[in-house]
Amino acid sequence: MTSTIISERLAIIGIGLIGSSIALAAKAKGVAGTVVLYDADPDVRRRAGLRGLGLVADTITEAVTGADIVVLCTPSGAMGAAAAALSSALANGAIVTDVGSVKAQVIESVLPHIADHAVFVPGHPIAGTEQSGPEAGFPELFNDRWTILCPLEDERPAYGAAVSRLIAFWEGLGARVECMDAKRHDLVLAITSHIPHLIAFQTVATASDLETVTESEVVKYSAGGFRDFTRIAASDPTMWRDVFLMNREAVLDVLGRFSEDLTALRRAIRWGDGDVLFKTFERARHIRREVIEAGQDISAPNFGRNQRED
Amino acid sequence: MTSTIISERLAIIGIGLIGSSIALAAKAKGVAGTVVLYDADPDVRRRAGLRGLGLVADTITEAVTGADIVVLCTPSGAMGAAAAALSSALANGAIVTDVGSVKAQVIESVLPHIADHAVFVPGHPIAGTEQSGPEAGFPELFNDRWTILCPLEDERPAYGAAVSRLIAFWEGLGARVECMDAKRHDLVLAITSHIPHLIAFQTVATASDLETVTESEVVKYSAGGFRDFTRIAASDPTMWRDVFLMNREAVLDVLGRFSEDLTALRRAIRWGDGDVLFKTFERARHIRREVIEAGQDISAPNFGRNQRED
Repeated sequence: MTSTIISERLAIIGIGLIGSSIALAAKAKGVAGTVVLYDADPDVRRRAGLRGLGLVADTITEAVTGADIVVLCTPSGAMGAAAAALSSALANGAIVTDVGSVKAQVIESVLPHIADHAVFVPGHPIAGTEQSGPEAGFPELFNDRWTILCPLEDERPAYGAAVSRLIAFWEGLGARVECMDAKRHDLVLAITSHIPHLIAFQTVATASDLETVTESEVVKYSAGGFRDFTRIAASDPTMWRDVFLMNREAVLDVLGRFSEDLTALRRAIRWGDGDVLFKTFERARHIRREVIEAGQDISAPNFGRNQRED
Repeated sequence: MTSTIISERLAIIGIGLIGSSIALAAKAKGVAGTVVLYDADPDVRRRAGLRGLGLVADTITEAVTGADIVVLCTPSGAMGAAAAALSSALANGAIVTDVGSVKAQVIESVLPHIADHAVFVPGHPIAGTEQSGPEAGFPELFNDRWTILCPLEDERPAYGAAVSRLIAFWEGLGARVECMDAKRHDLVLAITSHIPHLIAFQTVATASDLETVTESEVVKYSAGGFRDFTRIAASDPTMWRDVFLMNREAVLDVLGRFSEDLTALRRAIRWGDGDVLFKTFERARHIRREVIEAGQDISAPNFGRNQRED
């Protein structure tokens, strides 16, 4: 499958799972002419070169020079500094976008560094795995996943054109695209991504801390449900630290709600109120079907692991 | 692969995911001569017959008559009543076992019904999927999973022989077997299975309750992490209600600990303490590797879903 070229020269800043997947998908699907990559870590640059992800630049300005689309793929907390560093090298009419899991605070830290001859269109592909680094990327990552763009209030015609171009860019990579206000993005993602990660991290950490049960027991009997949490909890700690620090308000809001509900469930267990438990479980159960019908997960039991194991 | 026959006539009481998987595995692996099944629900019996899981009995006493091994596969809360109903039909020397996720309370409800000419050896295979019913079973379910047996304090030689026979039975079905005290089982499983399920149920229920975000948004962007929780939350509500009511003490104990830890994490987010977050995430991360090394999950990123989707 080949799309039209959307970017003659695509610059990717930050070569982790997402950055390397964009590079691979852009080449595999013919969305970019030249792909140039940069990472602040020299060892990551070296590994990106070995993997043949594209041209690897030695400096961030070299990577950005002449690029028509620049994608910031660093952890959310590093995007402001990256934008400041590349700012002076941005070509006329360059489109800067990002893939950060948090939008309002990324906009706050990046936008001041984007001069008027360029535009910034914040974005976020809802795709990933628990793995990190330039070796983790693969070109199919975005297939049938949603990418959310959060266009700023900008009346310039060039801005509208940039949004259209990024929609075509992401669709070319295999994704579906939705536009949304940054604040709403941060609330929706708090629920669908940030809170599940926080809870998985904490569930695994609490289990590994218990004095009464050994870690090897926890690992050995993890097929009872716990192993699913360990997958999410294997995600990149730096990226996730930034997410919680930068989406504090929405995360605390949803977390407060979750804790309140969990307390009610604890009370139902203490008092032996089976009806409350049953009704809560019933309510949760039907969502799974909707997720599968929406094409956001496979329907095979156990994520198809049983077929693969044997 | 065929093992020696361990049970000439195997009776399975309760034909859900586990009951049907035992029936299929026992036949496929040559562990049982005849398999007889019974379920209190006539429609489930009919479907079990259609699927050809074995002989389907019309009454529980008919199912148990002449059986050398009887496996209780009902929800944990129904096992006492099932044991009472089959009690009079137990053959001399019959071995009764169960697959309940809770052990201490199941022993309390089942043991009084097992006469001296039979033995009761409680058990629990740590295996399952989110699906339920006689159609959900498959013969590979127990491969490389652990089954925990919780032998009672019983000095009779017949009891020791029964334990050995059940170890051979489960190994014949593909599982590895470990023996453990019932109280310890209930604590270990609270951590590795019960709490993860409770938290997943509640996370999904909380998300579907929020007035500020629509259910369709939650579903649409679920690939950010939430979809993993929906799989576990699709599990059978009756079975899980019984688990929480019957393992109350251990569940409340671990849940209290989890809530306390989660509160500390909330506080770190509120105060912007990135170090606390990073260290918690780091600690959680390494457990994933141990789970994979222990053969309790596949190493493919995203549970291999990306390969299957494309």
